[in-house]
Amino acid sequence: MTNTEPVEAGTSSVIGVDVGGSKILARVVDPATGAARGRVKKNTPTDGPGAVVDAIVDSVRALDGWADASAIGVGVPGPVTPDGTAGPCPNIVGWDEPVQVATELAERFGKPVVVSNDVNCGAVAEHRIGSGRGHADMLAIFVGTGVGGGLILDNELIVGQRGMVGEIGHLTVDPGGRPCGCGGFGHLETYAGRAGIDNEMRRRTDANRHLLSQVGDSQLKSRHIAAGLEAGDELSAQLIEEAAHALALVIGNAATLLDLPLVVLGGGIVDRLGEPFLEQIRTSDDFGGVGVDFTELVLARRLDDAGAVGAAFLVADPI
Amino acid sequence: MTNTEPVEAGTSSVIGVDVGGSKILARVVDPATGAARGRVKKNTPTDGPGAVVDAIVDSVRALDGWADASAIGVGVPGPVTPDGTAGPCPNIVGWDEPVQVATELAERFGKPVVVSNDVNCGAVAEHRIGSGRGHADMLAIFVGTGVGGGLILDNELIVGQRGMVGEIGHLTVDPGGRPCGCGGFGHLETYAGRAGIDNEMRRRTDANRHLLSQVGDSQLKSRHIAAGLEAGDELSAQLIEEAAHALALVIGNAATLLDLPLVVLGGGIVDRLGEPFLEQIRTSDDFGGVGVDFTELVLARRLDDAGAVGAAFLVADPI
Repeated sequence: MTNTEPVEAGTSSVIGVDVGGSKILARVVDPATGAARGRVKKNTPTDGPGAVVDAIVDSVRALDGWADASAIGVGVPGPVTPDGTAGPCPNIVGWDEPVQVATELAERFGKPVVVSNDVNCGAVAEHRIGSGRGHADMLAIFVGTGVGGGLILDNELIVGQRGMVGEIGHLTVDPGGRPCGCGGFGHLETYAGRAGIDNEMRRRTDANRHLLSQVGDSQLKSRHIAAGLEAGDELSAQLIEEAAHALALVIGNAATLLDLPLVVLGGGIVDRLGEPFLEQIRTSDDFGGVGVDFTELVLARRLDDAGAVGAAFLVADPI
Repeated sequence: MTNTEPVEAGTSSVIGVDVGGSKILARVVDPATGAARGRVKKNTPTDGPGAVVDAIVDSVRALDGWADASAIGVGVPGPVTPDGTAGPCPNIVGWDEPVQVATELAERFGKPVVVSNDVNCGAVAEHRIGSGRGHADMLAIFVGTGVGGGLILDNELIVGQRGMVGEIGHLTVDPGGRPCGCGGFGHLETYAGRAGIDNEMRRRTDANRHLLSQVGDSQLKSRHIAAGLEAGDELSAQLIEEAAHALALVIGNAATLLDLPLVVLGGGIVDRLGEPFLEQIRTSDDFGGVGVDFTELVLARRLDDAGAVGAAFLVADPI
């Protein structure tokens, strides 16, 4: 893959850091190609954003060649405003409030720092070196436990004043429908996200049914859904049909609103179900609006370390 | 109003032209303030885009001071690509195909020309001198016979590769719902647009009912709806409730997708029903997503000649 090639000597480099709920990953990235080298991985501290900032600094400084890098890009799992205020990050224990981390990191490193949302970073990686390469306008949607995304218009990442543009999982597809973790109802991710499908499966089923018998008490995985479909399990097929319907509605509407030529779909469920799931979305009656014949739906390229590489792209060409 | 003040001597001026289904209006505009002077109005020709281009040229040349203007902005009732290819314009008889009008007009005038969608021009006028003034990000929605809009992000009009970004009336609010003129089903404008409400009223009612008895065989007007609400007519209230629901769903979703702080609402129905209609939208259960507490809904300022003035703004500061 292009983004794991070694950076050639003499190429200017940047650092990309992906801060996840459990791990922090730092890499040295060639911003021209996305090729990454070096790899430092640390556990994400659970005692607040101050400790996370310390761990980011330690991770970067442990990278061979960090001193030669011109700048540092950081992706975090929460909203980030354009001035680099990040949080709350619900998946990082103790990071419950927005904190100005970009300024602090820039002071600590003595180099330019851009902080952005991790899913937005993944969208940028798809745009620069993945399935969106060469497209000025695109929406990326990642369907995993929840549903997040990233919007690129005229080759720029759109983040919004609160940094909330990626929150596509909370678009309403069925007013008054399935309850969402955010307190709303009928949001996309309650139909298409793994957690939403898991909840609905348990609501509709009993231990004799195929899907729940595979999953048991553990969390539903994408492979359970794929296996259920393969085995002809009716409930699996119904739940995925409803997920495709919800995605078709949101994608059709987003494509119509923004005249989008390209939507890139990735994340655990999409990676597992692949092209047949995309075809289910495309052929849904709910894939409507005026964008249908225009908007191409493609699978994400599943780039290695997309979060870290995307963060590096963002700081190399700040948006 | 600011946009009808006379332009002061010495101020550089631009021309704004609004091409409607029945009339072409040309004005001289001060791009700093939107103040307009001069006014030439002609019937829109019905023998194709070539004749419309001729009429635009004649209208502009009939304006006092046109020769001193630095550029010409033109709004037309159809999609316009970023290179100035405009059409089809369903409301202009004979303009059935996209035509490169910007280049031809620029050659005829010997000055820079920008052509844009007329509803987008109205959105730009609201952004520069109306209810959106001072906001970098906003969506304008105009609810009339149909529903159209304009999106401004980071102070720039977003038009899309096909120039279709204004087509917000064709977002799906109810999959499989009311049939739309475009061939789709359940689109916003079948619930909120006057033509959609008119169709639905006739489907649900008979001559004894209040609303239809007011309208008779003529087209439903916004004043009929307002009078129906005032008289306590149940069908009027139902249809407007459904319009508010549809708008709440689309506005909540657009605001969530784009993290929008401001949505400006205008057009015949909104102008007539005013603030109570906005409050109905705000308090709808369907005004969901993560934007609700953040997104302000305000009435458009109903600027004079907003199409012509907005077109002038666009060419003064081309986007």
